[in-house]
Order: sequence, then C-alpha cells, then structure tokens
Amino acid sequence: MDTGAVIEALSSSLGQRVSRSKSDLDLHGASETHFPPMPPDAVVYPETTAEVAEVVRICAAHRCPVVGWGIGTSLEGHALAARGGVTVDFSRMNRVLEVRADDMDVTVQPGVTREALNTELRATGLFFPVDPGANASLGGMASTRASGTTAVRYGTMRDHVLALEVVTATGEVIRTGTRARKSSAGYDLTGLFVGAEGTLGLITELTLRLHGQPEAIAAAVCAFDDVAGAVAATIDAIQLGLPVARIELLDRASVAAVNAYAGSTLPEKPHLLLEFHGSEAGVRETAETFGEVSESHGASGFDWATRPEDRSALWSMRHNAFYAILASRPGARSLVTDACVPISRLSEAIEATQADFAQHGITGPILGHVGDGNFHAIVMFDDTDAEAVTRAHDAAHRLALRSLDMGGTCTGEHGIGMGKMRYMEREHGPAWRLMGTIKHALDPDGIMNPGKLVPPCN
Amino acid sequence: MDTGAVIEALSSSLGQRVSRSKSDLDLHGASETHFPPMPPDAVVYPETTAEVAEVVRICAAHRCPVVGWGIGTSLEGHALAARGGVTVDFSRMNRVLEVRADDMDVTVQPGVTREALNTELRATGLFFPVDPGANASLGGMASTRASGTTAVRYGTMRDHVLALEVVTATGEVIRTGTRARKSSAGYDLTGLFVGAEGTLGLITELTLRLHGQPEAIAAAVCAFDDVAGAVAATIDAIQLGLPVARIELLDRASVAAVNAYAGSTLPEKPHLLLEFHGSEAGVRETAETFGEVSESHGASGFDWATRPEDRSALWSMRHNAFYAILASRPGARSLVTDACVPISRLSEAIEATQADFAQHGITGPILGHVGDGNFHAIVMFDDTDAEAVTRAHDAAHRLALRSLDMGGTCTGEHGIGMGKMRYMEREHGPAWRLMGTIKHALDPDGIMNPGKLVPPCN
Repeated sequence: MDTGAVIEALSSSLGQRVSRSKSDLDLHGASETHFPPMPPDAVVYPETTAEVAEVVRICAAHRCPVVGWGIGTSLEGHALAARGGVTVDFSRMNRVLEVRADDMDVTVQPGVTREALNTELRATGLFFPVDPGANASLGGMASTRASGTTAVRYGTMRDHVLALEVVTATGEVIRTGTRARKSSAGYDLTGLFVGAEGTLGLITELTLRLHGQPEAIAAAVCAFDDVAGAVAATIDAIQLGLPVARIELLDRASVAAVNAYAGSTLPEKPHLLLEFHGSEAGVRETAETFGEVSESHGASGFDWATRPEDRSALWSMRHNAFYAILASRPGARSLVTDACVPISRLSEAIEATQADFAQHGITGPILGHVGDGNFHAIVMFDDTDAEAVTRAHDAAHRLALRSLDMGGTCTGEHGIGMGKMRYMEREHGPAWRLMGTIKHALDPDGIMNPGKLVPPCN
Repeated sequence: MDTGAVIEALSSSLGQRVSRSKSDLDLHGASETHFPPMPPDAVVYPETTAEVAEVVRICAAHRCPVVGWGIGTSLEGHALAARGGVTVDFSRMNRVLEVRADDMDVTVQPGVTREALNTELRATGLFFPVDPGANASLGGMASTRASGTTAVRYGTMRDHVLALEVVTATGEVIRTGTRARKSSAGYDLTGLFVGAEGTLGLITELTLRLHGQPEAIAAAVCAFDDVAGAVAATIDAIQLGLPVARIELLDRASVAAVNAYAGSTLPEKPHLLLEFHGSEAGVRETAETFGEVSESHGASGFDWATRPEDRSALWSMRHNAFYAILASRPGARSLVTDACVPISRLSEAIEATQADFAQHGITGPILGHVGDGNFHAIVMFDDTDAEAVTRAHDAAHRLALRSLDMGGTCTGEHGIGMGKMRYMEREHGPAWRLMGTIKHALDPDGIMNPGKLVPPCN
C-alpha cells in the first residue's frame, strides 16, 4: 500500500476533509476496549454517498484498508484500524432524509444517532425503539446488529432495517431491500450487511421501521430471593404473551451498587425492572398480571407506576447501573461480557458465573436483558495489576465458553470486533469458513475492515 | 452430466429410495404454475442429513443439478427441475425432533408441515403462527421466506427461523445460528439461507420460534365504501399499536364470489376481516377501539365475535375465498399475483389494478394481507384461448411493475421460482449481480436448483 498516493488521491477529492492530525488519528485509533490503540493512516469525513464511493474506489485501487466509524461507542473495538488505512467517519452524514408517517418508516444517513432520530420523530407520534444504552449512530448499530433493553418487545436492528444503500468493496453503490414490509425476492442482502461490521461494504443510507408511541407506559419493580425466581417469572410472562417492553435483571451485587450510588434502599436481592407499553387499560392489566406471576415465583415488593416522574425514577436506576457499578470500585477498569443463552439455561448460566467469580475473587455485578437470555457481567479489575488483568480476562473467557456450551452465542448484541474473534470457530464450526468464502467473494483484496469477523486467511 | 453414473451411485447409497418411475418424475416435474412440466432425472427420498449430504456429494462429483422438494405447494415453480438432475424429496424427513416449552422453540426436520407441527404443539400451550394458507412443509416455507395472514402480528419465516442445519453445495453439513434469541456473532447465515430457494444448499433441520397460544381470540368484520377507507383504517390501527393478529382485505369482487359460494349475504363492498389475540379484556378493548377507528373511515356493519363457532364462520369465508373465486368462473385457470407495496401506496395500487383489469377485460378479484401492504389478484382466464392467456399474463406483468414503481417488491411472500425472474434486475439493480457473486462463491458449479434466483450467467 502506497499511503502517500492514497492520501494524495483522497485529498484531491475531499480537500480539507482528509485529516492526518494526531488528534484525529488518536481519536479514531482508540476504543472502549482493553485493546491497544490502532490508529488509521488518515481519517476522511465524506458528506455524500458519492464521496464514500470515491474513497473506497481510491482505497481499492491501492489495496488500502477502509474502516467505517460511527460515533465510537462500540464495546469490541470494531472500528480499530487493525491494519492501518483510512477511517471513514460518518459524522457529516447525519441527516434524517425522510419520515413517512403512514408507512411508519424513515430514511436516514448512517451518522444519525438514535437519540437524534427520536428527537426528530417526537412530533410524529412515532419512535425508534432499539436502545443499546449508548447514543450510538444508526449506521454503527446496524453494522453491529445492536439491540438493548427493548429487544424483548420490539426486536433488534435485524428486525428494523428495511433497506440499505451500501458502498461495496469495489466502490459500487447498491441498494438492498425495498420499503415493502416484507419480500421474498431473493437473498436477504439487507440482513447480510446488518451485523457484517463493515467487512463487506459501508452503509451509506438506512431505511428503518418505526413504531407508534404507546398510549400508556407503566414501569414496575420487584425483588426475588434468587435469580432463578426472576427468570422463571420472566419465562411465564413471555409464555403468557404479556406485552412486556423491557424486562431487566439486576443481580444482588448490582442492586447494592445502585443503592450506594443513588442513595436508594432496595433490598439487596435480585430485582426485575419492567416496562409495559399499551393502552391505559392494557398496561394496568399487564402490570397486575405480572404482579401475580412474580408473586407466584416468590417476588416481594412488587410496585408499578404510570406517572412519568415515578417511571423515570425507576429507570434512571437501570440507566445509571453501569456507572453505579464502576463507582463501586473507584479507579478500576472494566470488561463487559455479553453472553446470550436459551432462556431455560439463563439462571444456571448466571449462577454458574457468580460461583465462578466468587471462586476466582472476581468482582462482576450482572445486569441482564433477561427476556432475551442476554446478560452482561461488569468485570472490574485494577489494570496496574497484571495478575488481576489476567484473572479478569480468564473469567470473561470462561463465561463466553459457558454461553456456547449452553447452546448460546458469544455475543448477544455487542458484536465480534477484536474482542470475540477467538470464539467464532467454536460458535459456528465450518459455517465460519463459509462466512470467509462470502467475504472473499465480495471483497477479494480484503480491504473492508480487515482483521475482523472472518477467518484470518481471508 | 453422466446421468447413469449418478443414478448408480445414488442407488448404491439409498437403494429403493431412488426412484425413476414415471409417476414420481411427473409429480416432481409439475407445479401450481403455468410453466410446462420440468421433471428431474430421478427423485430421492433421504431419511437422514447424512443421506442428503451423500446425495449432494454424488451430484457435485458429476455436476448434476440438485433440487429440493417439500410438498409441492409453491406458487412460482421453485421446485421445477429446470435443468433435470435429482430432486430431493423431504417427505421422509418429517419428524418434530424436540419441543422446548421454556425456550418457546422447536427443532424440526424440513418435511414437517405447519399443520403437523401445530397438531404436535397443541398440548404445550404454544403454536407456530406463520400461515401461508397451504399446508406447506416448513423447509419449503423457510426456503421461500413464506408468510401469510398472521405476518402483521407475528412476522414472516425470516422472523421465526433461529437456526438451521444445511447441506451446502459441496455436501458439507453446517449449522447456522444458535438457540439464543439474538446474536451479533458474524454474518446472518440463517437469514441468507431463508429465502434462498435451495440455490445455496438444502435445509435439513430448522429451529423455529414459537408463541404462546393467546388466552382469547376475537374476530371482526366490517364493510367500507371503498378500498381507500379500509386501508386508512388499517394504517390507523397499526399506528395505534392495536395488537391485530390478522387484517385481511376482500375487494368487492371477492365478496361477491364469497357470497355466491357460501350463500352469505355480505354487502357487495370491500371488507376487512380481522383477528385479535390477547387477554379477554385486551381483545375486547382492541375490538372496540378498532370499531371506532373503522367507523371514522366510513365502515358499516362492524361486528365482532369471540365464540369459536362465530369466529370459524367468519374465517372460513376468508379461507375459502380462493376456492370461491375459482368457482365463480368454472373451468377457468388462474394466475395469482403477489405485489407488496408501502402501505401508503396500497389503496392506489389496488385501485390502479382494478382500473387496469376493467380496461383490459380481466377478471381478477383481489385479496390482501393489508397490514403488510401485500395483495393477491386471482387473475382468471380460459387457457384454451391464447389471446386470453396473453392478456392475463400481461395484466400480471403490469401489476408487478406497478408494485416496483411504487417502491415495493415483485413478491411479498411467494418467492421468485420460475415466475418472477424477469423482475429481479429491475427490483434489485446491481444488487442482483451481488446475489450472483454469493451464489457463485458458495456453489461454483451451479448445481443447487439451477436456473433460479440469480442472474443466468451464474
């Protein structure tokens, strides 16, 4: 790769929107992970699809790596420039292009964040439900197949991307999908690019499904004697078809951290926090039914609220739980795991993890999107203590293997990036090589986000 | 291709379960379409995945086409052996392998039909909702990305396949997906094989999502002065988030046919037939709210029922509508279209189609999965009249183009098969070639269902 020639060609197309400043390279070489910085050789700020296509064509001509960048909230180092090259920062492609209220869909550029979209939608009576916590870009959320607290009701990014515009590895612009709600017309290319982590092309436009803002929202909270009771109540609620919009588990350690952080006085037991969406009567009925279900599994202190301020108080506990947990060990670094198992194995998976942590002296409070079987342990450690770092990583490793052994996945919603490559062969077996075959067919020179997702030979 | 050598090798593996009888070849060379018979050279009846893999390996060694066969209900000739070869009939792989009630999933062999699965599930409190009308095999439904009347609430096959076992074009057995409810671990290969129409491999096992049987079901019916009113009521209901499980449109001509067939006395106007799933109180509230919504769009005669016999009476009208329409023109052949458009364009699409039919003297009652923007015209014609045949096909052609022009798809749920190949380039543009690139990478010799889905050069 002749970096100078690449930069020169990019500059003649994008002028000042090609940066080699140290601050730009540092920013785009950093991540939320423990991986060392991996800066690109240059960062470009395209404003149009045509410019993205031109960037990729230039890079393709020089076999120069191309890495997409949304807003940098990835937890697995997806956008680290593992082999240098050019990082394409989508922050200037941040327009909501068209809201179609009757069709309940919207077309956006990839740099729009989910909060910006929902602000734009506020007056329409519609909203975009996928909520991974961070105010991520929608292009990044599609590329990592993100989800979050609302997936149990509304689904993941996979369920919300109707159509894409993509710049392929050759710099060609293609469109996948249509605005029809469903189609049987050929391979689901939209679904192939969602979750491809920029290894097959760069998403330059997304058409997303929206939902009507619910007439009423209720929040609820209750405590259980053990995780198994909380999970059993969740299974019952889902089998009953209760329209639960969020159902989140905080384990005992998480509750203790939340109490300490927020001055709350929740009993130090596993808790479920819930949200119900529907009509006024519907959420009342759902909340009451859930109260009965939870009591039959030993829950205590069931309480629900429809007033916005009461709901906010409940959910701010959940939203702040991550910070509360970090604050419980000032100065500690953290490592966030992402196991997702069949829900019948969930309490076993969490309890085995807690036992493992206790055995190895690991501090790792657990939060879970329990309706999906997905839970995160926030493993904290002192990163100046090499032995502690190793112990933390080993514990996370055992947790990922446990998830796979239980018929689950190594990553429910964070993606592979740099952090989960070691599990791909174990999770997919020969299907991983098939992913490599697809990658090689669509990107023969391996310029799109190299070092990620597919087997190394590709 | 040395057919004799293929047959010999197959026979040494499968013995009597290789058939070259005329009746077998005729059956597997026929379809529900206007295409002429295209029989294979042999039909095999494997009983295990290992046998399917052996069949594909034998065929691969001789570059012999391999075509999957479920139960033969495809409407687009997917399983016609366009280039001869071996048809793999999955009727002996028809076992429900494992029902996991807590996880609300099931693993089945591809030859299990949706009715057989639901019979098996009856005692569990769970059901499989995807209902394309025909009692299709689940392998075939996955391969065509089928849906039907319940997609508005529960989604399509794309939303229900969690994991697959597939025999690839080289005869390798791979597994895609896991039993976790969601995953961000690499390319969505499950989604790639769903809807691939057997052109990338043969599905030998499916893990499917199930749902809890609703506590209560209500059915409703109402008449509108025009299609636009029915569509507007549908849009309102969906924006309100009403848990509508089915919402089906019958146009005036369909209602007339149903009345004549069943002796019913519905007013000869466009009708909506609906089904609501939920709690007792929930379906009552939903039905009442829908009654108000529909009246605001000029509906009359709104009536709803929760008693099973009353619901059956309503839905038997819908289920028999296809036969009622055929009976309205005894001896006529039919051609079923499958346009699907953004719902904001739906009434315009239907009205333009009705006007087009009137202008060209076409009889084509229209039924629609109106919540998805998907509608079928049952175009009837006398197949001994060459000019009438041409007129019918031309009308269906204009309808498909109209759907594409409105931002929709040429096929909402029936698939491409032989019937919709001519629209692929127009619908997908350069993305169609990308489908061809994937096909070529995974099946370089083009043995898997050749002549289907991808550009002819592949």
